[in-house]
Amino acid sequence: MEEKDLKEISENISYLIDSENDALIRNIVYDIHPADIADIIHYLREQDRDYLFKLLEVDVASDVLSELDDVSRNDVLEDMDSVRLTEIIDEMDSDDATDLVSDLPQDIADKVLSQIDLQDSEEVKELLVHDEETAGGIMAKEFVSINMNSTVDEAIQEIRRKSEEVEDIFYVYVVDDEGRLVGNIPLKNLILSKPSNKVSQVMETNVVSVKPDVDQEEVANISKRYDLVSIPVTGDDDVLIGRITFDDVVDVIEEEASEDIQRMAGISDEEEFRETSAFRIMRVRLPWLLVGFVGQIVAAFILQHFEASMKQIIAAAFFIPIIMAMGGNSGIQSSTIMVRGMATGEISIYRIGRRVLREVLVSLMNGVVCGALILVVVAVWLDSLNFGIIIAVAMLAVMVNASLSGAVIPVILRRFDIDPAIATGPFITTSNDVVGLLIYFFLITTFLPWL
Amino acid sequence: MEEKDLKEISENISYLIDSENDALIRNIVYDIHPADIADIIHYLREQDRDYLFKLLEVDVASDVLSELDDVSRNDVLEDMDSVRLTEIIDEMDSDDATDLVSDLPQDIADKVLSQIDLQDSEEVKELLVHDEETAGGIMAKEFVSINMNSTVDEAIQEIRRKSEEVEDIFYVYVVDDEGRLVGNIPLKNLILSKPSNKVSQVMETNVVSVKPDVDQEEVANISKRYDLVSIPVTGDDDVLIGRITFDDVVDVIEEEASEDIQRMAGISDEEEFRETSAFRIMRVRLPWLLVGFVGQIVAAFILQHFEASMKQIIAAAFFIPIIMAMGGNSGIQSSTIMVRGMATGEISIYRIGRRVLREVLVSLMNGVVCGALILVVVAVWLDSLNFGIIIAVAMLAVMVNASLSGAVIPVILRRFDIDPAIATGPFITTSNDVVGLLIYFFLITTFLPWL
Repeated sequence: MEEKDLKEISENISYLIDSENDALIRNIVYDIHPADIADIIHYLREQDRDYLFKLLEVDVASDVLSELDDVSRNDVLEDMDSVRLTEIIDEMDSDDATDLVSDLPQDIADKVLSQIDLQDSEEVKELLVHDEETAGGIMAKEFVSINMNSTVDEAIQEIRRKSEEVEDIFYVYVVDDEGRLVGNIPLKNLILSKPSNKVSQVMETNVVSVKPDVDQEEVANISKRYDLVSIPVTGDDDVLIGRITFDDVVDVIEEEASEDIQRMAGISDEEEFRETSAFRIMRVRLPWLLVGFVGQIVAAFILQHFEASMKQIIAAAFFIPIIMAMGGNSGIQSSTIMVRGMATGEISIYRIGRRVLREVLVSLMNGVVCGALILVVVAVWLDSLNFGIIIAVAMLAVMVNASLSGAVIPVILRRFDIDPAIATGPFITTSNDVVGLLIYFFLITTFLPWL
Repeated sequence: MEEKDLKEISENISYLIDSENDALIRNIVYDIHPADIADIIHYLREQDRDYLFKLLEVDVASDVLSELDDVSRNDVLEDMDSVRLTEIIDEMDSDDATDLVSDLPQDIADKVLSQIDLQDSEEVKELLVHDEETAGGIMAKEFVSINMNSTVDEAIQEIRRKSEEVEDIFYVYVVDDEGRLVGNIPLKNLILSKPSNKVSQVMETNVVSVKPDVDQEEVANISKRYDLVSIPVTGDDDVLIGRITFDDVVDVIEEEASEDIQRMAGISDEEEFRETSAFRIMRVRLPWLLVGFVGQIVAAFILQHFEASMKQIIAAAFFIPIIMAMGGNSGIQSSTIMVRGMATGEISIYRIGRRVLREVLVSLMNGVVCGALILVVVAVWLDSLNFGIIIAVAMLAVMVNASLSGAVIPVILRRFDIDPAIATGPFITTSNDVVGLLIYFFLITTFLPWL
């Protein structure tokens, strides 16, 4: 649904809430997709969110709750009694239920876990063990599996039995007597096989699976690489314990990209786009601003150190911004390509040396072009060829140095298992600024007699 | 498969190619997924790529070709005779075939189109009409559809008929006598329905579809929002003309994220991570470096304009880097959140005013903190409270200004249908630098008598 329609509906609902016309509200939301209802709730005034949510059927409420942004979700959960909350969580897929329970305050979480269906509660407790950003943290316990000695007809019966619980079924997983994954059958093949066939005859055996402790980014890369609509997760001894579907993979890819982008911009990864508290946003951003602050104070001390040269040639100060900026831009280009290329798996760790060399080569070429330009500009403007040469050489050196460190630092961070994306942010730009200014004024001071 | 295994296999194959042991090579690659074979080819020496590719069966070669990076693909295509190329393209899904044909030189493309199967050729020609980055550009013509008056059993017969051509089937689409999309049936429901039922009785009618001219980013957002494993594309009069599957959506999301990230870093969106030509990389990056260059030359002129003040208080120059950097970082934080939030659809266009205000508020708070810190540093270091106050005020003003323009410019660009991501790059940082320096030196010069 279009955003403007959702906005309009939310305004109508606000109006209906004021007149407490519950029947009409129910009527309006009846046909609307849960993801759209979640947005309508987001548009409502705070006090109305709870009102609308209470009118939803349990199964719809369960889907809507999984889609709500954090702020609206808290508005809705705040006054919910635990009976309703329990009913709603009972309806959820185990992965969504786990996400929700892990966000609840401990006492409420315990209460909910003791009240929901025993099987669900076991599943949620099992999933809570895994790190949120691993395969185990994003998998769901809902899937259809069948023993390899069964027939196609029995597999179909199993789908029927599970069809309520498992909404999207893409494969029937085939396991041996110990529950180990041995194959899968796409539904298409199931439809086209004779009911009396053994599943072991029609299954595909070359199944890609992941272990629960694999990082979610790796899961996404595997899924993307092999175009998998769902990936089975296997525990010890290859026993099938869950599955991850394409929609979770899509979320992971988007989440990881946003995380990279935010880290590049010096925002720690906790900022939500819909964050409403300016104070919280401030706290997330201030640390990186302070990293830059400290670095630039060092830059100020460096400039003070070269005060005498600057006083002699005040024009040296004119080019502080361009030296800093060209180094900064060149460094960001290199580090971005390295960080993103490693994250998406497109830059092979076996070709990293070559890629770093290429970055240096590129910055060398661009540095020569920009250096030549600044030489001409300075020589004409300030009528000093020597000064132009110094600045050109400084620019070239600063750009190559920034590209080199921009390309190498992410690789080093990765080797120490630190997210390379933080290197693209204020950290690397600030250190490039400091080193860049040192190079620039070292050259100026050294060649002062010729200027 | 792990990267190191692929690397090892490619080394073994290199060795076997030298001894021309084709049987053994065929044996090795027989069991390997096409995506992995593509990587193995990528690892091979240039002259060996073609050799390995020639050994592949046509259907495998077709899948591998779709997965190859541009450089390896060109190596492989270079010497391929058009008979083999035609065979390979005949095996491809229409969307992959279209991508490939559109990359071929015109004369080869025409030749291939005249030689491949007539139906395929019609499909490819039809798809070539659409812009590559729209729903029409990423959809495939392979799907299963059936008339609404058919029975479930007939739908199953249709799946059987198409099962060779359409690899992944998630839904059978239901159309009326004019070919208009009226519903879909998930395979699960097909399996669980009585064969004699009419498809119109078991189909779901609330089907989300897109038009062929919808931007691919929008398609991805819709797919993500409603967790759709495949989206039907309908043309004029809602006639079903294609479908887009989750794997294409995953590619789009990753592509758009990488594009945003690269634009933020001042790299135009044509750079491939695996790009091998340093000269091409240079050409992609140089334009943005030059934008920065020109902006910083303006900055240099501004500094020259304030030369007299700087000569009087040389310390003013010490703080050029910190003023520029704090403005830059603050502006990047704001623009990144706006650009990424709008791209993912998480920042609503109806709440943009509020979001911009929040950015200003956040930068105001962070500006006060950083301003207070610099006041103390300058007052202690240079023993001048007045100078400290000026710099603190300048820093606050520069940070708020940078955040404001960082938040507003992407919104304006979007309104003019220009990708907001370019605003996060050198363009916005450079203009922030220029304005920031103006603010800083304007304050210094104005309050010079008190310093």
